Amino acid sequence: MTEDSLWAENVPAMRFSQPSTFGRVERGSAASPGDVAIVGVPFDSGTTNRPGARFGPAAIREASSRPLRSVWHPQFNLEPFGAQDVRDLGDIAATPFDIPLALRQIEGAVSDTIVGGAKVVALGGDHTISLPLLRATAKRYGPVALLHFDAHLDTADHSVFGARFTHATPFRRAAEEELVDPSRSAHVGINRRVYGRDVQDADVELGYLTIENFEVQCHGIDAIGQSLLDRLGGGRVYISVDIDVLDVAFAPGTGTPESGGLASWQLLELLGSLAGADVVGADVVEVAPAYDHSGITSVAAAAVTAQLVGLMAVGRRTAAQWDSATTQADS
Amino acid sequence: MTEDSLWAENVPAMRFSQPSTFGRVERGSAASPGDVAIVGVPFDSGTTNRPGARFGPAAIREASSRPLRSVWHPQFNLEPFGAQDVRDLGDIAATPFDIPLALRQIEGAVSDTIVGGAKVVALGGDHTISLPLLRATAKRYGPVALLHFDAHLDTADHSVFGARFTHATPFRRAAEEELVDPSRSAHVGINRRVYGRDVQDADVELGYLTIENFEVQCHGIDAIGQSLLDRLGGGRVYISVDIDVLDVAFAPGTGTPESGGLASWQLLELLGSLAGADVVGADVVEVAPAYDHSGITSVAAAAVTAQLVGLMAVGRRTAAQWDSATTQADS
Amino acid sequence: MTEDSLWAENVPAMRFSQPSTFGRVERGSAASPGDVAIVGVPFDSGTTNRPGARFGPAAIREASSRPLRSVWHPQFNLEPFGAQDVRDLGDIAATPFDIPLALRQIEGAVSDTIVGGAKVVALGGDHTISLPLLRATAKRYGPVALLHFDAHLDTADHSVFGARFTHATPFRRAAEEELVDPSRSAHVGINRRVYGRDVQDADVELGYLTIENFEVQCHGIDAIGQSLLDRLGGGRVYISVDIDVLDVAFAPGTGTPESGGLASWQLLELLGSLAGADVVGADVVEVAPAYDHSGITSVAAAAVTAQLVGLMAVGRRTAAQWDSATTQADS
Amino acid sequence: MTEDSLWAENVPAMRFSQPSTFGRVERGSAASPGDVAIVGVPFDSGTTNRPGARFGPAAIREASSRPLRSVWHPQFNLEPFGAQDVRDLGDIAATPFDIPLALRQIEGAVSDTIVGGAKVVALGGDHTISLPLLRATAKRYGPVALLHFDAHLDTADHSVFGARFTHATPFRRAAEEELVDPSRSAHVGINRRVYGRDVQDADVELGYLTIENFEVQCHGIDAIGQSLLDRLGGGRVYISVDIDVLDVAFAPGTGTPESGGLASWQLLELLGSLAGADVVGADVVEVAPAYDHSGITSVAAAAVTAQLVGLMAVGRRTAAQWDSATTQADS
Amino acid sequence: MTEDSLWAENVPAMRFSQPSTFGRVERGSAASPGDVAIVGVPFDSGTTNRPGARFGPAAIREASSRPLRSVWHPQFNLEPFGAQDVRDLGDIAATPFDIPLALRQIEGAVSDTIVGGAKVVALGGDHTISLPLLRATAKRYGPVALLHFDAHLDTADHSVFGARFTHATPFRRAAEEELVDPSRSAHVGINRRVYGRDVQDADVELGYLTIENFEVQCHGIDAIGQSLLDRLGGGRVYISVDIDVLDVAFAPGTGTPESGGLASWQLLELLGSLAGADVVGADVVEVAPAYDHSGITSVAAAAVTAQLVGLMAVGRRTAAQWDSATTQADS
Amino acid sequence: MTEDSLWAENVPAMRFSQPSTFGRVERGSAASPGDVAIVGVPFDSGTTNRPGARFGPAAIREASSRPLRSVWHPQFNLEPFGAQDVRDLGDIAATPFDIPLALRQIEGAVSDTIVGGAKVVALGGDHTISLPLLRATAKRYGPVALLHFDAHLDTADHSVFGARFTHATPFRRAAEEELVDPSRSAHVGINRRVYGRDVQDADVELGYLTIENFEVQCHGIDAIGQSLLDRLGGGRVYISVDIDVLDVAFAPGTGTPESGGLASWQLLELLGSLAGADVVGADVVEVAPAYDHSGITSVAAAAVTAQLVGLMAVGRRTAAQWDSATTQADS
Repeated sequence: MTEDSLWAENVPAMRFSQPSTFGRVERGSAASPGDVAIVGVPFDSGTTNRPGARFGPAAIREASSRPLRSVWHPQFNLEPFGAQDVRDLGDIAATPFDIPLALRQIEGAVSDTIVGGAKVVALGGDHTISLPLLRATAKRYGPVALLHFDAHLDTADHSVFGARFTHATPFRRAAEEELVDPSRSAHVGINRRVYGRDVQDADVELGYLTIENFEVQCHGIDAIGQSLLDRLGGGRVYISVDIDVLDVAFAPGTGTPESGGLASWQLLELLGSLAGADVVGADVVEVAPAYDHSGITSVAAAAVTAQLVGLMAVGRRTAAQWDSATTQADS
Repeated sequence: MTEDSLWAENVPAMRFSQPSTFGRVERGSAASPGDVAIVGVPFDSGTTNRPGARFGPAAIREASSRPLRSVWHPQFNLEPFGAQDVRDLGDIAATPFDIPLALRQIEGAVSDTIVGGAKVVALGGDHTISLPLLRATAKRYGPVALLHFDAHLDTADHSVFGARFTHATPFRRAAEEELVDPSRSAHVGINRRVYGRDVQDADVELGYLTIENFEVQCHGIDAIGQSLLDRLGGGRVYISVDIDVLDVAFAPGTGTPESGGLASWQLLELLGSLAGADVVGADVVEVAPAYDHSGITSVAAAAVTAQLVGLMAVGRRTAAQWDSATTQADS
Repeated sequence: MTEDSLWAENVPAMRFSQPSTFGRVERGSAASPGDVAIVGVPFDSGTTNRPGARFGPAAIREASSRPLRSVWHPQFNLEPFGAQDVRDLGDIAATPFDIPLALRQIEGAVSDTIVGGAKVVALGGDHTISLPLLRATAKRYGPVALLHFDAHLDTADHSVFGARFTHATPFRRAAEEELVDPSRSAHVGINRRVYGRDVQDADVELGYLTIENFEVQCHGIDAIGQSLLDRLGGGRVYISVDIDVLDVAFAPGTGTPESGGLASWQLLELLGSLAGADVVGADVVEVAPAYDHSGITSVAAAAVTAQLVGLMAVGRRTAAQWDSATTQADS
Repeated sequence: MTEDSLWAENVPAMRFSQPSTFGRVERGSAASPGDVAIVGVPFDSGTTNRPGARFGPAAIREASSRPLRSVWHPQFNLEPFGAQDVRDLGDIAATPFDIPLALRQIEGAVSDTIVGGAKVVALGGDHTISLPLLRATAKRYGPVALLHFDAHLDTADHSVFGARFTHATPFRRAAEEELVDPSRSAHVGINRRVYGRDVQDADVELGYLTIENFEVQCHGIDAIGQSLLDRLGGGRVYISVDIDVLDVAFAPGTGTPESGGLASWQLLELLGSLAGADVVGADVVEVAPAYDHSGITSVAAAAVTAQLVGLMAVGRRTAAQWDSATTQADS
Repeated sequence: MTEDSLWAENVPAMRFSQPSTFGRVERGSAASPGDVAIVGVPFDSGTTNRPGARFGPAAIREASSRPLRSVWHPQFNLEPFGAQDVRDLGDIAATPFDIPLALRQIEGAVSDTIVGGAKVVALGGDHTISLPLLRATAKRYGPVALLHFDAHLDTADHSVFGARFTHATPFRRAAEEELVDPSRSAHVGINRRVYGRDVQDADVELGYLTIENFEVQCHGIDAIGQSLLDRLGGGRVYISVDIDVLDVAFAPGTGTPESGGLASWQLLELLGSLAGADVVGADVVEVAPAYDHSGITSVAAAAVTAQLVGLMAVGRRTAAQWDSATTQADS
Repeated sequence: MTEDSLWAENVPAMRFSQPSTFGRVERGSAASPGDVAIVGVPFDSGTTNRPGARFGPAAIREASSRPLRSVWHPQFNLEPFGAQDVRDLGDIAATPFDIPLALRQIEGAVSDTIVGGAKVVALGGDHTISLPLLRATAKRYGPVALLHFDAHLDTADHSVFGARFTHATPFRRAAEEELVDPSRSAHVGINRRVYGRDVQDADVELGYLTIENFEVQCHGIDAIGQSLLDRLGGGRVYISVDIDVLDVAFAPGTGTPESGGLASWQLLELLGSLAGADVVGADVVEVAPAYDHSGITSVAAAAVTAQLVGLMAVGRRTAAQWDSATTQADS
């Protein structure tokens, strides 16, 4: 054996040597983010119920302790981590003590990262972080479609004592600020039993479509997936996955767990069915490890993250084919 | 801000300030129980395996820490907690040391509560409590239909050393005492693999219908729901939900967990499909928090409780419409 | 009461008195193993990720603390534990410190046990143990079909530093040593997203068939069950169940949990659908109790074990009927 | 049995019926706070490491589920909960989303409560809350002595990104704002190994005395207790107990656990040794239940809270005797 | 290797093969109990707070998974498990559903066991079991001294609703029935802060001596041990250890945990200091595994059990020496 | 704010951003190990009871998530992490599948690291790793004194089936191979109650001194510390700390927990009392995170690790002073 092999960092299969990057991908930076930049956002000061999502990025990375570069995805027919340059940039430094400052910090770091075309997959953190992520995304691309997987609508006007920037409000702010185009957007997996009618009506007024968890469970993955692709209409899309879209049995490690939600396989397959969508940014939020057990939640979140990276790879290939086709047509 | 707003009890959204009632509904009493009385029955001395359901009522209330009064239910098309006066009466004082005395205590407290027409939703406690609940119910209404969601039949003649009043026997006693009409009753979600044939035959002899968990999983919610409504035949029904009807992954916090059971969404939707049934009483039992984790079980039990309250609201409306129709016809 | 009844071992219903055998069956030995011998194999030194399956046999026995002798199985239409003589032989002494020696120890103990025709259901331990189990089985019966329920293929050539005998390699070794006939064998429940294409291609080259977890979830139990029976072609079969074929929510207590896997009911029903197969040996592996909670995983593993015993009972009856039919035809 | 006895609220011994007040004392309000007002402050937005102390008040109340009114304290030779009117006022509504606003809310609610002379024992919440508590206390009484039990000094100038109001800074702010008199104050139980020398020097410069955890462990309770009484010099004192002054084995359920800290008995006896001090306010902070197990931490915190109430009772008696003696001398 | 060595029961060092007896001692029976009979009493129906001690015997046995026969005890200067014939008789079958019947069952089984002079070490179960154990002991030996290690006095007259036989009352009943001689008996480790003065006075009236936990912590093991030996006065003694005499950090897995209790080493050394006492029976009670973690409590309880066996061995030797001395003197 | 401050790696105070090195020290390598090299050895294949120490290095690093460079140690009167160049080299790649190969791998990597005079503090891993660490140490320095903190002697001749290289044997092998000088060595904190006399006699025969846990608890830190320094006699010493020297309440997360052990403060102070010893190597082993809870064990292990680094700093200063004194004397 060579000397190098005496150290675990050179032996990817040693899963129990703590990984410092998601899926043991290369470490990147805002200046060299690769094609897809995995970014931790350990911010949970917008949480209304059980806090702790600040430890989410570390837990998701730990749950993803196998090397992924050579993984081949049968549903996508490509290697999501090989077909594009995926890097882990570490965590954004967002203060826990001042929400407006944290929003600026997150937006700044993400803007730095995506300015050259890299796509960010953010690991939360609570759902508050989707707002600065969408601000950076819209600054780069203009308004995007939003696919929002969640048990909750997250379009409240404010939380307690008039707080306008919390994990309950990002997609109202995003609509108000025209960061997203609600007419091409949807909430998926919503648990309608926990909202008043006024709240649901107000969400409809913003222009969002809601697909309940029950509809996914009863109508099947293919039908829902197709209707989502139709909704997107081919444009750029940002996907935000609140892990509480899963039933509390599949995601106990979260701040506001609900009963009756999706099974992990349904979420994974539904994401897979969106192959071809032009995903320009994504996040996986609300993993709160203090409430998790043996990785039930973080293993699911890591698998979801990998699916999102896969969608970006397919989107890239599709775009390339389309470019190529266009070029040929032009010539 | 006003002075009152300095105290959390006046700010319903503060979920982490410990709720003292289910869903933050008003506190009631046997003398003023409202339309629907939520009642804790922290009794678990009839448990044959893992005890601890005495802490069930506290855990279910804690899992239901959001205000429910304005929640609108899309499946029922009404506000279950707004359309009727729902109150939480606290816990019944049932001695843990003397089962016969505890049965009289529970029956007494429930009888006091329902004498004026209030409907009780009891939070267990182990399944022994269904017997005094049915005794009080039958005293008020005569024999009722029983819908019993459970992995187990609970129609044993006795437990170890001839004990006739345990969590394994309530529905044999209820049949013997003619508190229920087995010909309009059913067990739903039974795990048949854990019983001898003699036990299953004896249950059939009592007149009950059994629907296995596998049937729910394979035949679909609508079909099973319709067959249950047919079975009930329009009369008064008591619904008893043993949380172990859920697979142990969805309900680890219970005394006798089983593998292969329902998913939470299946139980919730199946209950929803019974809209229109005339539910005069209900219980949610066998939540044992010492075996739960991060609310996996208690969050499910709280959602089930809310569904039961919803069924009572629909039943009330249906009855009112029928009364109104009758009145009009008479005039 | 008689004096004997003062001791819990004479009162099978006392579930909380620690069982020392699976399902409280009689204790057997290699010399008198009964028809079906339950055997613990507390070996986990072949584990690549989270160890601890050495405590699996104890946990599975503890989760199966009810007497099973009189249990009648509706799907099989017989009493799996009554129709045949099922015994628990305790644990095989396999050293944790020397994998080659442990393999010989396990093979030796199993060979002793099955020489007279008894069938072994082994409780692991990690998946390494399937190799010596198959060696003993093939020595007795020749190459068998293999039904392998798992999230992972377990046909790697080697693990880190060239280790050829680990829980990642048993079914490559089994194919190389011609212990199994891959053309009649299948992997079921595989999570294809975690493998490179080369790995999957190499597995196909060995001759195995792969059925993904997604296929079970979407195509239904009956279709998959029938295709597996077709694959077996009526010959002898060994069934190996890695509990991580279940989603991490159903099996957190395992070494390499995955998201997106089967629900427990799907695994149990799928096994039930194989009734009539000639199962000559089986194992349930990778239960790691340190990562379990309140028996979520071990309760599932105990139910799976009972299904395997049931399959052996049905196979025995089928064989007997066939023998009887043959005899009649001969006469 | 009377009808009333059918409900658990009338049967104090039913510990498993969820208590809604600490030690089942009467519910009070800011307008009628009794002599000693127990007040929950579920605020944890000033946490630098593991959050979740917002659930501390609920956990401490739950751990104190026995009736305390008739408890007699041998060390104090009185009934701490009977000799004075102790009430639980519920939780203060402090926003999690805006630290400056939350500080004003806490100070306002406490000021309302103590204006008539009631003493507050606050249940945190993180250590940030001591600042508004001291502000309210100083407004009522002028600068007080501070006894601060903690593994940490909590006299940082600021936390990350210049945040001046967090759980790391309250006692620097308190000194700067002259809410406390450092020359009569002390930190007790400090773990000096986690600070730079500059930090320790800066704390000395503020005027505080530090007693290390090692000194308590090696010099004995009586010696330390006497030196603390000497330090106080007979004036009014505010006692703040960060539960992390206990070793992590005695207090795993906290945000910044340390190894090498006090045992619970040492903290309890040390508090007891302060009998006679004129305690005008107190808090027990940093109980984070998501990291606790079976009440290890919250049971300790509840016992500490009871000791603090006891000190207030002794102080009251001492004051009364002194008044009485003075009166006699005058006459 | 011989064939026998292929099975773990023949290889005592295999700690992870589930032990079925305490310390892997031989299995005994009431008819052949050896010198010291370890007996499980999985009864917890007398519990007032957190139930689950019915699983205590199994947990203590599991925590004692090493062979003890050759263990040499430096403090006792003998081999506690070698110098006498120690056997594990399994569990007594005590109904959970009828306390008076269970008391008779326990007394009957213990009486059977000790009739020939064997000494019982009972593994509880809750503290209710000490009453039937003392009844059987007094029937055999007459009134004995009682050494009672506990945070609680357990001399209440009754629990809720007049229940006279619960885990709060055994030592009042024992005094009333003259099973013990209070003038030679003591409670050790009591947490006096949780009782009213009337309760403490009533206990004194029964004749018991109380040694507080604080006295053990501050006065040292030797002094307390000597004073206990003095109190016993040389006669027969029964030792009852409620594991909650340990601080909740050392014993979270119990029904009524208290803060401020003993450390495990203090309890173990204090027991060791009683060497020479004539211990005729003992119990270790209130281990509730559902609240334990990784064996914190059950490992302590197993060590305590071994100390009690050691005391019996020393007492046996002392008695033998005394007999021998007497015989010599006589001759 | 500068751009750099947008990323957590540049903001050391962000404790919840996963640290990749112990105490956030610089990352080193075998070629540039600094003065003190922290090295993970995630090897647990020598474990006889509960495995999982392979995850120990990751857990200890995670528990040490605060920057330590500026920490000043009052007992040592220096900055342990500032006075010398401390680096974290990551983990050694030791195969879990072949103990002899793993021993060579560990020895090789450590030898590479210390060849230039760097001192290694190894984070285990099980206690097997001390053997290759001592082999590398003795190769560099010749036989050293050994201070071994442990509940167990670890001088067995072999484990089950003759295994000579396990976590039960390292210090017999080390004595046999003359890596250590037993006459200057000691076991500290031993729990003598778990060994036969023969085992203890054999250990004495090897030349080791044993100091029981009881002696530390009763004789005081200073006395024991001085006697250890006397034993060392001023020469080079290797310190090995098995975390199970702590009572199971302080270290539940370990493979072979014992009751009656040291408190964390006793271990930390005892290590501190060794200031001046010439520590040339050290390890902290047997942290098994799957059995830990909220960092009870890993926080203790991280504090122990920091003490060991501190001892090395003091030793370095002492040596320098001595060199300087010598030089002056020479001149």
